[in-house]
Amino acid sequence: MNYNPTVEVCFSPSLYEYKLTKGKFVTVVVDILRATTSICAALDNGIDVIPVSSLEEAKGLKQDGCLVACERDGKIMDFADIGNSASDFAHAYLQDQSVVFSTTNGTKTINMARDAKEVLIGSFVNIQVLADYLKGKHENVVIFCAGWKNLFNLEDTVFAGALSALLIDGGFATFCDSSLAAMDLWTTAKSDLKKYLSKSSHRNRLAHLVSDDDYAYTVTLNSSKVIPKLNGDKIEAL
Amino acid sequence: MNYNPTVEVCFSPSLYEYKLTKGKFVTVVVDILRATTSICAALDNGIDVIPVSSLEEAKGLKQDGCLVACERDGKIMDFADIGNSASDFAHAYLQDQSVVFSTTNGTKTINMARDAKEVLIGSFVNIQVLADYLKGKHENVVIFCAGWKNLFNLEDTVFAGALSALLIDGGFATFCDSSLAAMDLWTTAKSDLKKYLSKSSHRNRLAHLVSDDDYAYTVTLNSSKVIPKLNGDKIEAL
Repeated sequence: MNYNPTVEVCFSPSLYEYKLTKGKFVTVVVDILRATTSICAALDNGIDVIPVSSLEEAKGLKQDGCLVACERDGKIMDFADIGNSASDFAHAYLQDQSVVFSTTNGTKTINMARDAKEVLIGSFVNIQVLADYLKGKHENVVIFCAGWKNLFNLEDTVFAGALSALLIDGGFATFCDSSLAAMDLWTTAKSDLKKYLSKSSHRNRLAHLVSDDDYAYTVTLNSSKVIPKLNGDKIEAL
Repeated sequence: MNYNPTVEVCFSPSLYEYKLTKGKFVTVVVDILRATTSICAALDNGIDVIPVSSLEEAKGLKQDGCLVACERDGKIMDFADIGNSASDFAHAYLQDQSVVFSTTNGTKTINMARDAKEVLIGSFVNIQVLADYLKGKHENVVIFCAGWKNLFNLEDTVFAGALSALLIDGGFATFCDSSLAAMDLWTTAKSDLKKYLSKSSHRNRLAHLVSDDDYAYTVTLNSSKVIPKLNGDKIEAL
C-alpha cells in the first residue's frame, strides 16, 4: 500500500450528500448526547440494537412485541420500554436481547449512512479501540456527526477532532477543513472535556433530562472496548 | 431595550434554511476568499456591485453592455472584464461604475440571504466598522459563511468567530454551538491569522491562482471603513 488513507468530517446530515461524491469510504457515526454513546453501553451489556428512523416504525415494532428504546427531544416516548440513556441499557432483563432504538438525531444518521463500505458507531467511550481498528483497515474514513436537528453541535465535533487526531497520528491524511477545525477544537477542549462541553447548547438543552452521572459517562474516554458495526438491520459488536 | 440581541453562525448555504425558522435577523455574508473581501475593495474604489448567482445571468448582462466580474473555481471567466481579486477592482476605468459580480460561492450566498432584515457584507478588512454598526443596531445577527460548494471552510469560520467575539464583547448573547466553536477557532488563529489560514483547503486549492499580495490583503484587519449593504439589486456603501 503506497498511499495514505484520508479522514474527513461531516458536521451535519444536511452536508453528507456532498461527501458521497467522493467515492466509497467507511463512515463512523457519532451522536455523543446520546445515541452512539448508549449503543456502546448496550453492546457492552450484550444487547444488539436495531436503529429505526421514525416514531411510526418504532411504535409498530413495539406493537409487534419488540423491546423498544425511543426518545425525542431528550424525552422517553410513552410507548417505549426505555429511553436513550446509557444507563437505560444496563437493566438485567435486556441482556442478550435485541432492542429497537429510535432517537431525535442519531438513529436517522445511522440509517443515512447505510451505503458506506462499513458503518461504525463512535463515542468517547470507545474512541481508542475504534481508532486502532480504522488504522488497521487502511480505508478512507468519514466521521459523520449527527448534530442537533441538522445543525452543527459542539460535542460531536470535538469527538470528530479527537478521532481525526488519532488517525492522523496513525498515518492518515486530511484535506478537509472540517477535520482541521475539529482537531483544533479538540486541542482546546481536551484538558477538561467535561467542562468544555458543558457550554454546548445541546448539554444545556438536556440539562434537566440528563443526570450528571449519565453526562459524566458520555465524556469519559475508553471505558469500553466495543466496536459497534451496522450489519443489515442490526448493530452488533465486531 | 431590556434584552440582549443574539449572534448565530451558519457554516454553509445548506444549513441556512434552519436559521430562517428563527424569525427575522440581520445577515452578514462572508466569503473571505474572495467575494466579500473584494466587494469591500470595490466599494472603497467607488464601485457599486450587482451580485448575480448564475453564469447565464452574468453572460447576459455582459451582452447587454454591463461591466462584469466573474469567476468560477478561482479562475476568471473568458467573457468577463475582470475576476474576483480585490486588486481587479482597483482599475481606474471602473471607478464610480456599477459592476456585475458572479462567483463560485459568495454571490449565490448573498442572493440566498435577500429575505433578511438587512444583508451586509463582512470580511477581515472591514470587521471593526461592521461590528460597531451592528452593536448600534441592536438586532439579532446571523453570520452566513459562503463556504466552498456548500461545505464548511476554515477562513469564513474564523472570521465568523472574530465577529461573534466582537459582538459578544458588545453585549450580544449566543446560544449557538457554531458561534461558540468559531470563537474558539478565532482564539487559536488570531496571533498569526495568515499562517493559521494557510492550512485551509481553500487557500491550498487557490494557491496557484491567488497572489501572495492578494492573500495578504484578505487577512489584514481593518484596512477599510466601508459597510457594504444589499439595496435592491445593488450592493452599496452605507
